[in-house]
Amino acid sequence: MPNFNANQLRQIGTSIFGAMGAPRDIAERVADSLVKSDLVGHDSHGIMRVITYYEFVKRKEIDPSARPEVAQETPCTASVNGHWGFGQVAAEYAMKLCVKKAMAGSIGAVSLFKSNHIGRLGEYAMMAAEQDMIGMVMCNVGPCLVAPYGGKSRQLGTNPLSVAAPAGKMKPFLIDFATSIAAEGKIRMKYYNNEKVPLGWVMDEKGRLTENPGELYYKEGDQIIIDGHRYRGCILPFGGHKGYALSLLMDILGGALTGAGCTSSEEFERGNGAFMMTIDISRFTPLNEFKRKVDNLFVNLKSSEPASGHSEVLIPGEPEFREKEKRLKEGINIPEKVWHGISAVAEELGLNPERLLRE
Amino acid sequence: MPNFNANQLRQIGTSIFGAMGAPRDIAERVADSLVKSDLVGHDSHGIMRVITYYEFVKRKEIDPSARPEVAQETPCTASVNGHWGFGQVAAEYAMKLCVKKAMAGSIGAVSLFKSNHIGRLGEYAMMAAEQDMIGMVMCNVGPCLVAPYGGKSRQLGTNPLSVAAPAGKMKPFLIDFATSIAAEGKIRMKYYNNEKVPLGWVMDEKGRLTENPGELYYKEGDQIIIDGHRYRGCILPFGGHKGYALSLLMDILGGALTGAGCTSSEEFERGNGAFMMTIDISRFTPLNEFKRKVDNLFVNLKSSEPASGHSEVLIPGEPEFREKEKRLKEGINIPEKVWHGISAVAEELGLNPERLLRE
Repeated sequence: MPNFNANQLRQIGTSIFGAMGAPRDIAERVADSLVKSDLVGHDSHGIMRVITYYEFVKRKEIDPSARPEVAQETPCTASVNGHWGFGQVAAEYAMKLCVKKAMAGSIGAVSLFKSNHIGRLGEYAMMAAEQDMIGMVMCNVGPCLVAPYGGKSRQLGTNPLSVAAPAGKMKPFLIDFATSIAAEGKIRMKYYNNEKVPLGWVMDEKGRLTENPGELYYKEGDQIIIDGHRYRGCILPFGGHKGYALSLLMDILGGALTGAGCTSSEEFERGNGAFMMTIDISRFTPLNEFKRKVDNLFVNLKSSEPASGHSEVLIPGEPEFREKEKRLKEGINIPEKVWHGISAVAEELGLNPERLLRE
Repeated sequence: MPNFNANQLRQIGTSIFGAMGAPRDIAERVADSLVKSDLVGHDSHGIMRVITYYEFVKRKEIDPSARPEVAQETPCTASVNGHWGFGQVAAEYAMKLCVKKAMAGSIGAVSLFKSNHIGRLGEYAMMAAEQDMIGMVMCNVGPCLVAPYGGKSRQLGTNPLSVAAPAGKMKPFLIDFATSIAAEGKIRMKYYNNEKVPLGWVMDEKGRLTENPGELYYKEGDQIIIDGHRYRGCILPFGGHKGYALSLLMDILGGALTGAGCTSSEEFERGNGAFMMTIDISRFTPLNEFKRKVDNLFVNLKSSEPASGHSEVLIPGEPEFREKEKRLKEGINIPEKVWHGISAVAEELGLNPERLLRE
């Protein structure tokens, strides 16, 4: 499996996005965002996205040179139009603005619409935490794959949520998860590997729980068809009716409040409708007091003896921070198949994949 | 079982809180809040609380005449000191202020500390929804009963969360739940009724999952001891590591950001540290567009065929709104034991329980 360091992957990504028509700063920004995902272990949102984003560019769903723009604003809030450029560019712009709003006015809120896939939400929430703020990112995402609690039809996306908060000596707090019980990609991998999924992850088209991941998919013969919109079964929300309610909240904030449209409606086009909030901690309590309390909380949690079947208690975000340290040292392994796909995109764009690394 | 209408219960509560030393407006406010909980079916936060609140008043934990006060504020935010009065008074004050902030500045955020039990969070989130805003209430609560994901010691409270948003023709959206998998009261009822709890609700003191609800409790002989602080086992968070992360977020917002202290720390005194946010929808998208989208989303969800073992898909809040319609018609049944307890409090305060209703 090819192994790259983060800088190499950034270079490769920047060259390819540049060849797709992105100005230098946009190409660098998108590549950096993808590599940040790879670094924390979220490869599904990493450099492999070059391949799908190129499809979107060819279909003119992503305009590689488009820049986001404020559509309306008040001192503490704004709505941002992503103009269907790269979502990573729009989301970074929106969160920077949201942080600026909170610096001036204690709290900020920014909605984002006409945005393509913004990638890993945790990146944006962390931008706020790095400024000693609490940052929140909530969004909806198509296609609908998730059933409402008690129902058997696909009405909701995997609608993710991220919240970050700074600590003192400890690593920051970072929530970053889908409101579905598992990512579709994880279920697909189980199918390819002939593995079962735990009962409670997938329902078949009759609304019965099943351990067979293949029941999620539309099939032609033995082949599952992945075109982003054809599925048979459903994924369940995490945590029963509570997770369902949160998924719905993501759709209300990401779809109705931003204007992007809820994912089950015809007006929803693609990408993410995202709603961001920032809270300047120091306007509520002295920052050092806040950090001391959070450190203390984390120390208490880490001191909890593991339950049966577990080896330790983790703080949300800890697995990602650990993976980052590891990958900064050991590099990032890219599966052959993914590297092959990236090379093919590079060649199609007239780049020499071998030379990408030497430049 | 005695049956009362809402007005009767409000009168009873008002008289009793008045006799505890609350000024008329405070007595009415607390009684009204409790009856609102009974009306939507949350009896655990209803008029039965008269009994425990009286204990708190006698122990001087609740000052019946104390009024909340703004400790610091900016145009969009405020911190409110509850001065250890009734939590329902402090929380209503905080949410009114939060709504006012958002009316002026598009969004608002208010933290609340030195607050006793604020009761049912949904009441406050709904105050924002009734003003065409999205309202959020997040809080921590003692004692620690909930284990972190992967751990076996009690580190977190049942830390609830509420979010409300208006719809158009449909009933509003209302999330209002604990981040533990079940309320302690529900587990206690299972114990008293000699019933099992589902596997995944309770861990014994060794950190093993158990169906025996008695494993949660400290016992002397066969008697379980409920004094608010002595327990043996733990309750689990809902939804595995995701629900655990949300419980932790409630403690960070309710404990560290408000200054009230995280529930596992010695500085946490009692009651709730609460953080509230309000979003004026019309600053982001036209209100009628928002409502149309939410209605459409709910109609789609309601049209989902039920999954196996379910009879319909519900919108968060729908069970409460239905119960309210029913109880407004049929009255509120108060268990004999609870009515007996309320009568005893009334008598101790020199009131004639029989006359409370005739006045």
